[in-house]
Amino acid sequence: MATGLVLYGYWRSSAAYRVRIALNLKGVEYESRPVHLVREGGEQHAAAFREVNPQEMVPCLLDGDRVITQSLAIMEYLDEKYPELETSLLPMDARGRARVRALAMVVACDTHPLGNLRVLQRLESQFGADEAQRAEWSRYWIDTSFKALEVMLADNAATGRYCHGDSPSMADICLVPQYYNALRWKLPLDAYPTVRRICEACNELETFQRAAPEAQPDAPVPA
Amino acid sequence: MATGLVLYGYWRSSAAYRVRIALNLKGVEYESRPVHLVREGGEQHAAAFREVNPQEMVPCLLDGDRVITQSLAIMEYLDEKYPELETSLLPMDARGRARVRALAMVVACDTHPLGNLRVLQRLESQFGADEAQRAEWSRYWIDTSFKALEVMLADNAATGRYCHGDSPSMADICLVPQYYNALRWKLPLDAYPTVRRICEACNELETFQRAAPEAQPDAPVPA
Repeated sequence: MATGLVLYGYWRSSAAYRVRIALNLKGVEYESRPVHLVREGGEQHAAAFREVNPQEMVPCLLDGDRVITQSLAIMEYLDEKYPELETSLLPMDARGRARVRALAMVVACDTHPLGNLRVLQRLESQFGADEAQRAEWSRYWIDTSFKALEVMLADNAATGRYCHGDSPSMADICLVPQYYNALRWKLPLDAYPTVRRICEACNELETFQRAAPEAQPDAPVPA
Repeated sequence: MATGLVLYGYWRSSAAYRVRIALNLKGVEYESRPVHLVREGGEQHAAAFREVNPQEMVPCLLDGDRVITQSLAIMEYLDEKYPELETSLLPMDARGRARVRALAMVVACDTHPLGNLRVLQRLESQFGADEAQRAEWSRYWIDTSFKALEVMLADNAATGRYCHGDSPSMADICLVPQYYNALRWKLPLDAYPTVRRICEACNELETFQRAAPEAQPDAPVPA
């Protein structure tokens, strides 16, 4: 579906990865505008981008003259704008909606923000953290959250093929990019069999595959 | 309104503070069950509480047999359960809802999680950060976000007495506890006049005053 939507993102940004999955699940087309987060100190800090998003972060969705920031707010917006039941990112019942949002926020509030680029840069500048220490830090927080998510998913009858029942939701959309980061940081995954099973099921879907970092136009060409 | 709702919280937890404001704005009564986050290594890590919330964090809302975690998911749940227009925590239009959620998430995803208790504890254990360094870390992230929020609020015609128009929303609910933390860390506030004006307006409301940390039954008695 042609929509005129524009997504400012970066191939390896977890939060942009979430929005790409959401757009694919919704079946809506969008124009991708890469913002290089590393090159020349980070294009997100340039004046031109600061006018789009004063937070100097991706993702950022343009819908005509609307500028929408924050990946979860973007997903809620997409769910309200395209409310077709079969592509809903949230269940219909209040209990289920609360569960899916909470699972999504374990990642989006308590995990991902602790390991993103600007935090790792600050650990280096304030505490002299080297690469091994930054990796340890990142693994520590992913492990803490994945342990909790494993219990929340394994002990709940509402869990199905995906985090909530048998269609992917906002919870899976947040979980899969975090799982990608866990692999990147070489976190052993044996302690979270349900998390792993669900992420592998998601990654069999074309909608998730097409959103993966390596599938983006701005991803570096493999050597 | 008697509801049977139970809130697990802690007087100085920013995220619990948010939910207290939301419950007061909604005008719904609740039973408060304090979880002491510091005493004896933290009651949130005890087996009894881990069964309520495997993430070992507050807040957590009980509604009958429903357990709802994550402050933003709790607020969305309350807004769905008590949809009366005059106490809505979100505007009615899609653009406004996206704006309010994004403002809330600048705090809830990108600010607060970086300065909460467990992160400061980890900075101490992994990098030996002393109290001054932990304060510097906290101030750095609040300053980064408040600078962005100041632009997002001052440059937008939708801003009113509060973050969005003239009634308090989810954005104010997140902003005020973060402002409380900014004062606690002695962050100079001159650079964020709009943030400050809005928080002061909120703090004139009885609903916000009654939710303040020092007004809670588990707050220490002033010396």
